[in-house]
Amino acid sequence: MELTAKRIEVTEVGPRDGFQNVKTFIPTQDKVEIIKGLIESGIKSLELTSFVSPKAIPQLADSTAVCQSILEQYGGRIKASALVPNLKGAQAAWDAGIREVACVVSVTPEHNKANINRTHDESLAEIAKMVEGLPGMKVRVDLATALACPFTGWVLPDAVAALAKKVTALGINKLVLADTIGVATPDRVHALAVRMQRDFPDVSFSLHLHDTRGMGLANTLAGVMAGITTFETSVGGLGGCPFAPGAAGNTATEDMVSMFNEMGIETGVDMEKLLQVVGVVGNKVDAPLSSHMAKAKIYDCFQRAR
Amino acid sequence: MELTAKRIEVTEVGPRDGFQNVKTFIPTQDKVEIIKGLIESGIKSLELTSFVSPKAIPQLADSTAVCQSILEQYGGRIKASALVPNLKGAQAAWDAGIREVACVVSVTPEHNKANINRTHDESLAEIAKMVEGLPGMKVRVDLATALACPFTGWVLPDAVAALAKKVTALGINKLVLADTIGVATPDRVHALAVRMQRDFPDVSFSLHLHDTRGMGLANTLAGVMAGITTFETSVGGLGGCPFAPGAAGNTATEDMVSMFNEMGIETGVDMEKLLQVVGVVGNKVDAPLSSHMAKAKIYDCFQRAR
Repeated sequence: MELTAKRIEVTEVGPRDGFQNVKTFIPTQDKVEIIKGLIESGIKSLELTSFVSPKAIPQLADSTAVCQSILEQYGGRIKASALVPNLKGAQAAWDAGIREVACVVSVTPEHNKANINRTHDESLAEIAKMVEGLPGMKVRVDLATALACPFTGWVLPDAVAALAKKVTALGINKLVLADTIGVATPDRVHALAVRMQRDFPDVSFSLHLHDTRGMGLANTLAGVMAGITTFETSVGGLGGCPFAPGAAGNTATEDMVSMFNEMGIETGVDMEKLLQVVGVVGNKVDAPLSSHMAKAKIYDCFQRAR
Repeated sequence: MELTAKRIEVTEVGPRDGFQNVKTFIPTQDKVEIIKGLIESGIKSLELTSFVSPKAIPQLADSTAVCQSILEQYGGRIKASALVPNLKGAQAAWDAGIREVACVVSVTPEHNKANINRTHDESLAEIAKMVEGLPGMKVRVDLATALACPFTGWVLPDAVAALAKKVTALGINKLVLADTIGVATPDRVHALAVRMQRDFPDVSFSLHLHDTRGMGLANTLAGVMAGITTFETSVGGLGGCPFAPGAAGNTATEDMVSMFNEMGIETGVDMEKLLQVVGVVGNKVDAPLSSHMAKAKIYDCFQRAR
């Protein structure tokens, strides 16, 4: 098994994708404690929150406070980003110290409409507004349903490339390929990643792979084999998708870090410290953790044997 | 992603490895119903039970009745096997109509001692007795802790090859490489599979991969890339390891079948029928199911979209 990658980077999205899917509001100080723990474990890239109407997502109504608290201590030492739906949200993120925002567009128009009630043209227009309105802000675009759509089935790389062409024409050079409902297979992930990197050599790609069917790490492996080295993960496997009932969340940060650390592919993350944070998440967040490492007591057991 | 395999075979071990790890005795008729369901879903190879002292494993005290019931209806159309600890068990299996038995030896002497209280020499002597005592019986050997041991840490391919050399010298040509505690990584699985097939070209190998750390399907993918086409799985992900506290069970049959079916690699298994059996297992077996497909309602949802 030839893997040229010596190092991969996880982008922790639990504080946004995870926390917004928890029904109860997690107190700001708990959010901050968890995020700081993640940073102290060695995670350098984090999607801290979302700047969106508190009426739409009350769980993240404290986005400004969370960002200020984290950036005050770690600003300049981490890559902090936030999800925003529009220029207004991006402006609020900027005011809170954020210099990279993520904006979601689904590859399938059907999912884009259901998810954010926009056509592709409307989404592209909003991205253009952000790029023009906030020249200092880096705008990353998350391509949702890049592998499969709950409304239309499998999504072909041609469709992803066609949308990516329009997005990159706006000046975007950072794209996330998301298996939003977690049904993609390793061969599809590999083919898409190879194709996109070939078609867009100046774009940096990351993968966002849900673990719905247990293929999260198999798909991650396929991504690494295709040359991808950055992956979005969520502590505890928190997160989900309203259009994928019963779906497990994102591939858990601790599951992915465990795999790469044990393979000798550097993540920069200390597993002991990360598992302590997972414990805090388990205590403070009112949601079941879908991660394997959170459940398995094998870690301690096997560590002692070595 | 170059995968030359067009077809893989799952060997269902839930009726042995799974049922023996359930605390309560599953009534014989429920066992038989589940096994028949698995066969009707398309599974052709099954480890039906274990012929072992009912004092040691009361859960499988009905091994003869289970085998007779299944073989009466499906004998000749399936590859039925049973786990046995010794010649006496193999004889009982033979009397129940079984023509292939599996015998476990751990690669690490420490685990062999803890698991079955034998030295390697004692295990090899017992295998020799079976081969000589029952010439018509095919004897398969499961090499436990072939990748990692809860007592000694990582296990190197050299150690696996050294034990396999002694085992094959007894006339055995079917070996299972087991990641007993489920901590192996894809690179290690790949390296071991490549090495063993090269060193033992006349032996057929299968993999038995636990999903403790969520790498079950990633390791399966690595196995397929190394040329392995048979995998032991357990319906519902039932099973476990007494030496791996908190460990999830085997990689679930339905998770693996889902991945391969969606990749266009033939398993011969009908997913709809298999998920019905998973439902029966969920109702009749008093144990949590660790499989992803058992939890995710995404299957129906995504099927409708296609």
